[in-house]
Amino acid sequence: MADVAGELLRAWADQPAVDHHCHPLRRWPFEMTAVELRGAFTEALDPQMAERHVMHTVAYQDAIRRIAGAVGCEATEAAILARRNAAEPGEYARRLLARTATAFMLVDNGFVTAESFTLPEQEQAIGIRQRQIIRLETVAENLIHDTNDPREWFGAVRAALRADVGRGAVGVKTICAYRATLKLQPVDTDALGVAFSAMRLRAQHGRHPRLSGGALCHALLFEAALECRELDVPLQVHCGFGDPDEDLAETSPLGLRPLFTEPDYRGLRVALLHCYPYHREAAYLCSVFPDVYMDLSLTIPFAGLEGGRAMGEALGLCPTSKLLYASDASRYPEVFLVAAAAHREALANALGELVDLGIMEAGTAANAGRRVLAENARRIYNLKD
Amino acid sequence: MADVAGELLRAWADQPAVDHHCHPLRRWPFEMTAVELRGAFTEALDPQMAERHVMHTVAYQDAIRRIAGAVGCEATEAAILARRNAAEPGEYARRLLARTATAFMLVDNGFVTAESFTLPEQEQAIGIRQRQIIRLETVAENLIHDTNDPREWFGAVRAALRADVGRGAVGVKTICAYRATLKLQPVDTDALGVAFSAMRLRAQHGRHPRLSGGALCHALLFEAALECRELDVPLQVHCGFGDPDEDLAETSPLGLRPLFTEPDYRGLRVALLHCYPYHREAAYLCSVFPDVYMDLSLTIPFAGLEGGRAMGEALGLCPTSKLLYASDASRYPEVFLVAAAAHREALANALGELVDLGIMEAGTAANAGRRVLAENARRIYNLKD
Amino acid sequence: MADVAGELLRAWADQPAVDHHCHPLRRWPFEMTAVELRGAFTEALDPQMAERHVMHTVAYQDAIRRIAGAVGCEATEAAILARRNAAEPGEYARRLLARTATAFMLVDNGFVTAESFTLPEQEQAIGIRQRQIIRLETVAENLIHDTNDPREWFGAVRAALRADVGRGAVGVKTICAYRATLKLQPVDTDALGVAFSAMRLRAQHGRHPRLSGGALCHALLFEAALECRELDVPLQVHCGFGDPDEDLAETSPLGLRPLFTEPDYRGLRVALLHCYPYHREAAYLCSVFPDVYMDLSLTIPFAGLEGGRAMGEALGLCPTSKLLYASDASRYPEVFLVAAAAHREALANALGELVDLGIMEAGTAANAGRRVLAENARRIYNLKD
Repeated sequence: MADVAGELLRAWADQPAVDHHCHPLRRWPFEMTAVELRGAFTEALDPQMAERHVMHTVAYQDAIRRIAGAVGCEATEAAILARRNAAEPGEYARRLLARTATAFMLVDNGFVTAESFTLPEQEQAIGIRQRQIIRLETVAENLIHDTNDPREWFGAVRAALRADVGRGAVGVKTICAYRATLKLQPVDTDALGVAFSAMRLRAQHGRHPRLSGGALCHALLFEAALECRELDVPLQVHCGFGDPDEDLAETSPLGLRPLFTEPDYRGLRVALLHCYPYHREAAYLCSVFPDVYMDLSLTIPFAGLEGGRAMGEALGLCPTSKLLYASDASRYPEVFLVAAAAHREALANALGELVDLGIMEAGTAANAGRRVLAENARRIYNLKD
Repeated sequence: MADVAGELLRAWADQPAVDHHCHPLRRWPFEMTAVELRGAFTEALDPQMAERHVMHTVAYQDAIRRIAGAVGCEATEAAILARRNAAEPGEYARRLLARTATAFMLVDNGFVTAESFTLPEQEQAIGIRQRQIIRLETVAENLIHDTNDPREWFGAVRAALRADVGRGAVGVKTICAYRATLKLQPVDTDALGVAFSAMRLRAQHGRHPRLSGGALCHALLFEAALECRELDVPLQVHCGFGDPDEDLAETSPLGLRPLFTEPDYRGLRVALLHCYPYHREAAYLCSVFPDVYMDLSLTIPFAGLEGGRAMGEALGLCPTSKLLYASDASRYPEVFLVAAAAHREALANALGELVDLGIMEAGTAANAGRRVLAENARRIYNLKD
Repeated sequence: MADVAGELLRAWADQPAVDHHCHPLRRWPFEMTAVELRGAFTEALDPQMAERHVMHTVAYQDAIRRIAGAVGCEATEAAILARRNAAEPGEYARRLLARTATAFMLVDNGFVTAESFTLPEQEQAIGIRQRQIIRLETVAENLIHDTNDPREWFGAVRAALRADVGRGAVGVKTICAYRATLKLQPVDTDALGVAFSAMRLRAQHGRHPRLSGGALCHALLFEAALECRELDVPLQVHCGFGDPDEDLAETSPLGLRPLFTEPDYRGLRVALLHCYPYHREAAYLCSVFPDVYMDLSLTIPFAGLEGGRAMGEALGLCPTSKLLYASDASRYPEVFLVAAAAHREALANALGELVDLGIMEAGTAANAGRRVLAENARRIYNLKD
């Protein structure tokens, strides 16, 4: 760690961060296995990856090192599991999360199970303010059974978004990338009608309707974009890599262009999540469209040293007023810890390089970092202390 | 700046450059505003970007530093504006442009207004030799009113290109990327006829015909390619990023493949402009097709440290006999200054790294730089002193 | 070369490598020309590239330096040619190949001429164990004449693959990227029938049938994938850059997704070859699908410093248990030498950086390198000593 980067990290030590995209913690107590720990640092779904390959990734080795440093044990998987499984889980979680210096967690709770904390429980358990990010597709799937056509359905979805925002939700997130290409196509009313009927029929037969395909997902995304614009809340869009349910070739944020150029969406704030390996493309969008924002969550810490490189590459075109911090962590405090530490280091290294080269003064770099860690998110999500 | 890079920069101090792609200066005198200075270092068209975000880009901060260094004032926007607005504009412009060490400016004057210098005026005002690059689409739009079908239109366009080259123009530039995808498609005669008629009708109703869509733009591009080949002048192609009128997803130079593989175009020299984030792809094309060239203009200086990284990445596959220098600057001498300085530094750093690693000798690196700065362009544009 | 990287190189000095993808050597004696030496370090097919541009590439300059170092002559093309043309060719080849520390060469002999060694001749001539990789398209083209429909043809191809594996071949390689897009499409039985008939007709008229187009190539690839899975041998897929017969835009490994997600291919081991500039995408595939592997052959050493950068970028997501070593060399011992040396250095630098940053211990890094150089390939190709 270069000297300048170290100074930046120290300057930010008292800077609480806004984690603008994360997921609920797993309800404790539970006993954590090695496969679970490995599974927490990979996007692979196939258990063979955790069994045979995750331990050979840079991301996992770096995670082990960081967790061991934080809990004060030997830097091995076994030592970490022993330490965490012997600890009082609430105290352990709070200790790790305290090191993330997080003021707000904006939580996408669209994929929760009985073992997830609810947001109020989580706020109570860890003492960090929680705000909901609404998972669009979950809301939409739950409403299909009770509506008769796409128009009714969209109306019900938009009413649900309004209600959730009325109850304190601060944004909407779409996982369209997992269900269709992100190359948005104009709505085809006929195809939409057919796809809706098919999905509704499944719902009426008691099967959970899984939203998928461009006809449904794009039309829904456009409706949600209109509603977010009216509600003055950001729309978060999963872009770039993720688990293998998505086809990475179809997840470039460049496909979202209609949201940035069509007058109907003017003023809509869009936050591009993850982005890798399309982070250069995402940074371009941030550089020409006033209401586009991006983060490098998931990329940091899952992509090893590529996380830091992506940070540097993103700051080529992306203004520091457009970059956001997120952990994309879920379930385990360890992931929040690793994401936060790696993110601050990547940011300090990227900005530190600019100071070293004489392009930025140290004070400017420190302010830029505060913007990324908290101020940009406070502004675009209208967070009040 | 490493020692070797510094030595290279000193070795090139007396090397006049050929700026193979730039735009006219704004006719002085004029009073420059902060928003104009910011607007000169972004591809954004929305004024909100200049108002709220450009000052948070690495490119702008670096530009401020470089301009302040050149004019000898404090490194702030306000100090620069005060200094330049108080100066005698002609003397000020010549002083800044002298620092770019430019022997020839190849000027795309396809997008000029009453406040742009003409080329003879500009040569007179700044004392640097000017050569015209013909903007294909501007020529073609101006000729549509007087032609009756695509064949006549293409004939008129080709005659106009011949006439301009006869009067001293040294190349043709296409902005197809702003009007259609760059994924070139074979000409569809029927679609071409329909699109031509529609555009001609608009022209006959007194509206400016704006060329757009693949049917027209690709057919025109193929005709221009044939004519450039016959005239023995290069065809410049805007690739990669630019202002948001283009869809970045459609601007990869790989889409130009028919120009490189079809026998009709054999011998046509093609210069890929800008390229980012497709510079690795552009470098590949330069490595396998003998008459393909590339530059990193716009990327340097608009993409911050990515400009230097793109230089290093391009030199992975691109021979130094294929890389060209351009500023892509327009309107303000400050942009020419910043582009030239940043470009030489990026080149020195990339070649210096090769010297440091023992792959290139210092003399070889110095020669490679002279090739990029001037000799390659002199050769492919047939420039005579 | 940083200290840690140097230590890693020394640690691997006694580690024989498995070159999991290369081509036959040219039968000696022969006199090598400058154009041949240059042509050995470029993917260009047009002789103008070797005549005018290859000497201006980083790859060639680096190759000259490395060869000169190995044979102990001045670092010029002329000195190298003089030295090698004066040497006893067998002794010369063995000396250069010994420096590659290769235990096994897995040889794709699908593109051989009368001047290529056969595998037994090559093993005899150089004393390195040879194993065959079957070139799918060559086998398939040779069988078309004797079959009456696609089903018969696929049956014959699969029987031939089984027979070759029975005789010791250890894998199958497809050059689908040179003949069709790699964006695999489901088989269209009608289109397949038509394309087969057309190709068979050419064969019956005595012309060599050249397999091309998605209908034939994708259907064949799917059949080969099924057979490889049954035979328990890996399928090698050319991805990313290569000679200009391919359209680079169509060669991303992401297009192979059906091979990774469809249950029919479950357990099939796929080795992505070359990958650049899609190595980040390839690394992603390696990170989520248990049986996907990749290499950076060709990229190293043809892409200059980009080879090392690609190594670092690939190790962002790709586990070290998934990365393979290959030279992709052919014809000349010099290419094997340069590829091997550059590959080890790139690996040492990438892993050394992780050690420097405290993410990996030196011993872990050394083991990771052994995995990449040999162990991963031994495992997935079932190589026995």
